[in-house]
Amino acid sequence: MTGAGAEVLARATWSGLAEPGDPVAGALVEQLGAVDALAWVRDALAAAGTPDLGPLEGGHRRLAPADTARIGRALARWAARLPDCDPRRGLDRLDRLDGAVLVPGDPRWPVAIDDLGVEAPFCLWVRGDLDLAAVSPRSVAVVGSRAATSYGERVAFDLADGLADAGGCVVSGGAYGIDAAAHRGALARGGTTLVVLAGGVDRAYPAGNARLLESVVAGGGALVSEVPPATLPTKSRFLQRNRLIAAAGRATVVVEAAWRSGAMSTAHHAARLLRPVGAVPGPVTSMASAGCHRLLRDGVAVCVTDAAEVRELAATNGADLDAVVAAERAADARAARPGDGLDPVARRVLDAMPRRVPADLERVASAAGVSVAEARGALGLLELDAWVVRRAGGWIAVSRLTP
Amino acid sequence: MTGAGAEVLARATWSGLAEPGDPVAGALVEQLGAVDALAWVRDALAAAGTPDLGPLEGGHRRLAPADTARIGRALARWAARLPDCDPRRGLDRLDRLDGAVLVPGDPRWPVAIDDLGVEAPFCLWVRGDLDLAAVSPRSVAVVGSRAATSYGERVAFDLADGLADAGGCVVSGGAYGIDAAAHRGALARGGTTLVVLAGGVDRAYPAGNARLLESVVAGGGALVSEVPPATLPTKSRFLQRNRLIAAAGRATVVVEAAWRSGAMSTAHHAARLLRPVGAVPGPVTSMASAGCHRLLRDGVAVCVTDAAEVRELAATNGADLDAVVAAERAADARAARPGDGLDPVARRVLDAMPRRVPADLERVASAAGVSVAEARGALGLLELDAWVVRRAGGWIAVSRLTP
Repeated sequence: MTGAGAEVLARATWSGLAEPGDPVAGALVEQLGAVDALAWVRDALAAAGTPDLGPLEGGHRRLAPADTARIGRALARWAARLPDCDPRRGLDRLDRLDGAVLVPGDPRWPVAIDDLGVEAPFCLWVRGDLDLAAVSPRSVAVVGSRAATSYGERVAFDLADGLADAGGCVVSGGAYGIDAAAHRGALARGGTTLVVLAGGVDRAYPAGNARLLESVVAGGGALVSEVPPATLPTKSRFLQRNRLIAAAGRATVVVEAAWRSGAMSTAHHAARLLRPVGAVPGPVTSMASAGCHRLLRDGVAVCVTDAAEVRELAATNGADLDAVVAAERAADARAARPGDGLDPVARRVLDAMPRRVPADLERVASAAGVSVAEARGALGLLELDAWVVRRAGGWIAVSRLTP
Repeated sequence: MTGAGAEVLARATWSGLAEPGDPVAGALVEQLGAVDALAWVRDALAAAGTPDLGPLEGGHRRLAPADTARIGRALARWAARLPDCDPRRGLDRLDRLDGAVLVPGDPRWPVAIDDLGVEAPFCLWVRGDLDLAAVSPRSVAVVGSRAATSYGERVAFDLADGLADAGGCVVSGGAYGIDAAAHRGALARGGTTLVVLAGGVDRAYPAGNARLLESVVAGGGALVSEVPPATLPTKSRFLQRNRLIAAAGRATVVVEAAWRSGAMSTAHHAARLLRPVGAVPGPVTSMASAGCHRLLRDGVAVCVTDAAEVRELAATNGADLDAVVAAERAADARAARPGDGLDPVARRVLDAMPRRVPADLERVASAAGVSVAEARGALGLLELDAWVVRRAGGWIAVSRLTP
């Protein structure tokens, strides 16, 4: 990693200098490029309060006073950090963990996250062999509460298992509860899974999931973060991390979420990115499902109850998972009731048939509310299919086990 | 009841002659009136196969061959029943139960069910003192599986309790499971409830709910049916009964329903009548909730989780129930987190604050990714609200219990 190019070094620096999702930093890098933007910041800070805004203007573009003020505030933020901001420490640390830094343009860069625009990450610090670009079209985010119920964990595990079975990559946040269950479900099926961390990829967070995170790397998955190694996760970084999870999945599914929770923010990020969102319902008596039900009520999410429905949801966003709609249709057909093939008249006659004492033709017609001729025809059909039999005294229904 | 007029007698006769929802009978009665339509049927059957279709035509209206054939088949159906069809038996029976027959035009007739058009009932056989017209704008159907779980029964009971508390009338089918729980919830709150039966109102069906049905009548509610006393419930009549439940409610809520079930048919009838439909979610592992989830997925139903949400749903169809939206908004506001009032910079500084070892101003600014000036201002605000304190060596967060 010591041979990292200027672009990689600059982007790695930016990832430590600006907080995740800082739109001023994003706009500067977009306009000047990461290297020149960093040089401009250094010059501007050296100029002590009177930065040269010329490079940010050009042609007909002139900065509005509000923009100038925003840039001034951003410079003040970065000033406190710039002296300590050396990406080589992080790169060395990652090197020892067989990690890599990805920047846009790298063939392994998952271009889907560029949908975040000026809030896209400058780079991704990655541990693990997973080819992020290759799995991107097959990635589905499965997120939810840390304070999950055993119901929620079971559903998350089963969904991830089913997604992995279809070749999907399960994206989540590595937290306790739903996240961990989702990663475990994918691993149990031998699938790949991606953990998007709010802190550095060298920090197992939470510590209780350290073994799980190692299993993810060992299983061909990856840990990724937009902040350099050794960075602490903070609440703001958790919230910003959620936008990355939403951007990395073709679709996002919320398994359990309290009324206000990180998973809800992930769902809203996904919706804002026009990614399909699914919510798994649960008992209305469980506060752990209250957020899911709110997403359903608000029309933010579609109701999903199994992996097939999640795959169907992701497919609406072009996800490259096995099509299962046909299988579902087949299951629908199997669920049909015996006797469903009967025409309406025969159905009515069958419904009206006595089960103990035989009835004659006229009585059957009257009970069913059909003509004598219709009853005669229907009884003939029903007899053929062994729904009714003729006895002394008339017709009677045959007892059958119906589901 | 012996003084019943010709219109009542004719409609009572039609209710025994034609099966519920028979559109040919409905169209005849609509065109000729109940009395003349019955006379026409008698004449037509006496004419033995060559009915005079003249009265059904007029002006530019000529019957198409398909219509003529449909009428011929309908006549054949009714022929088997007409000899036995004497409404006086039913009227006498109802009289002994203090019941009444309602026909359109009666001030107690719930005009909402006329939305069924030619499939509207000819009359309603009613037991109980409930004024069906008066409660119609406050009626909500709560339906679901007979094979309910204790979860579903509890939710149905609570919903009905909450609806009754708002002055609502709970409409259901008197069956085991969800229906019974809904009726019981309304009764427990001292509210009124309406049981729409598939058979005669003199028959307690199912027998195990006989005491419940009597409690409904004793509690000021009612049992209603469109078929005469002594009529047996059949599968077809159960399905047709569901359209009446859907029409009698301003909205329909499905609490638990298997993939294919009567409650699903009620929901679809309600949707066809442009009544709002709600579905209560449940565990995806419970087949008893599979139908509800399907209604949500298909966009037929809105997700509802408590009585307030059901009242809100019914209000979209003009239901005259206490408005609760304001109360719900207030609850939302109460759910806000402590510290929510902080501005974004203060929030970030608070998130980044150390909890064990104090940090100086520059370190706080760097950790939070804000300027030193911003950090100074934020710390001042946070100190005022006792989020942080100044110690030897710098600033530190105050431990607080957060929900």
